[in-house]
Amino acid sequence: MAEHISKQFDLELETIRTRVLQMGGLVEQQIRSAIDALMAGDIARFDKVIAEDAMVNAMEVGIDDDCQHIIARRQPAASDLRMVITVVKTITDLERIGDEASKIARMGKTIYQAERYQVPRFREVYKMAEVALAMLRRALDAFARLDAKAALELAEEDERLDEDFSSELRQLITFMMEDPRTISMSIDTLFISKAIERIGDHAKNISEYVVYLVKGKDIRHTSIEEKKREALDD
Amino acid sequence: MAEHISKQFDLELETIRTRVLQMGGLVEQQIRSAIDALMAGDIARFDKVIAEDAMVNAMEVGIDDDCQHIIARRQPAASDLRMVITVVKTITDLERIGDEASKIARMGKTIYQAERYQVPRFREVYKMAEVALAMLRRALDAFARLDAKAALELAEEDERLDEDFSSELRQLITFMMEDPRTISMSIDTLFISKAIERIGDHAKNISEYVVYLVKGKDIRHTSIEEKKREALDD
Repeated sequence: MAEHISKQFDLELETIRTRVLQMGGLVEQQIRSAIDALMAGDIARFDKVIAEDAMVNAMEVGIDDDCQHIIARRQPAASDLRMVITVVKTITDLERIGDEASKIARMGKTIYQAERYQVPRFREVYKMAEVALAMLRRALDAFARLDAKAALELAEEDERLDEDFSSELRQLITFMMEDPRTISMSIDTLFISKAIERIGDHAKNISEYVVYLVKGKDIRHTSIEEKKREALDD
Repeated sequence: MAEHISKQFDLELETIRTRVLQMGGLVEQQIRSAIDALMAGDIARFDKVIAEDAMVNAMEVGIDDDCQHIIARRQPAASDLRMVITVVKTITDLERIGDEASKIARMGKTIYQAERYQVPRFREVYKMAEVALAMLRRALDAFARLDAKAALELAEEDERLDEDFSSELRQLITFMMEDPRTISMSIDTLFISKAIERIGDHAKNISEYVVYLVKGKDIRHTSIEEKKREALDD
């Protein structure tokens, strides 16, 4: 009987872990679609990304619900409890990433539907998006394989993304000063870049929860130096 | 013995609830200080807000830790479990609010330390901050008094804040087009307003967790119409 319950419990843990990865895959696709739509001016694809938000939100609520049932019914302790709490936190960040993808789609739609003569410049945005997508995949992979080392890499990638954003900001300010007619579109582009920067931030958060999951140590709010020491300390 | 354990448990729940409110009071102060520093150009006060971030982060980690101990040791069920999970989620939003206050302080410092001839225009920022602060107080009050009705009000306030932001954005774009020398400072001001808008967003999130806590129903991702129906349904 105890063995049966234990197998049932393992299955439940495995199920929520799988669902987290499915949710992660879905928001990855949303970001991919939003960026492709941006490069092509594809309004229908923007709308598709926006519509998918409801599905992402439903997944969050569903997995969250399952986590609470597991806690109430199975009374997990130690690393199993950490797993469940990690899932609760991870799905919140994934849902916020989905929100950012929807915002990118909404802003992209605004840019293409406004009647302007300028051609949008999205090369920097595209490059930043590739970095953020790679970060998200790395974070989900770290969750799947319980890899505590990813957090250090992602902290460094996140800094790089912040620098890319600052650099693009300076560029856009220069353009705007040279041609004030580009101001409105430049600001829209800036907000899209900010959304991408925040996606990277959320990916970094997820990798930090994995460290907590694996080591029982909370490394959120630590510097890259401290993360390096933590990663070497195995 | 059972009564002793039960009283001990009640005390632990009461303690984490109190600590959430303390953490909330701290980030409220941070926002207040950042905005006052902005109106006065008070660099020292900006630095104080930035330094307080470490305290806010430490509180999050500490309360989070206590929550996991409570779950592991007391095995709460039903409404007690919902309380603990609500605390875990609320402190994440409070910590993010603290982050936004730090960002406002950092950006304020940048604005005042750059050598510019223009006087910053922070009147709109100040008005938005007053709204966001009121929203945060309302959310913390809702948490303290288990008031499920606050979520509807805060959803409406949040929309108002988003409109304030859009309106300020249009204003700044006009200024920038009239005088491109103001572009850099206008962008900094815009980012400060965005940080304030996100504070309101987090306050709204907290009020939604309270509905879940009180009613066992997850109303995140519902429209204002649906929230109205939920609030009337008592």
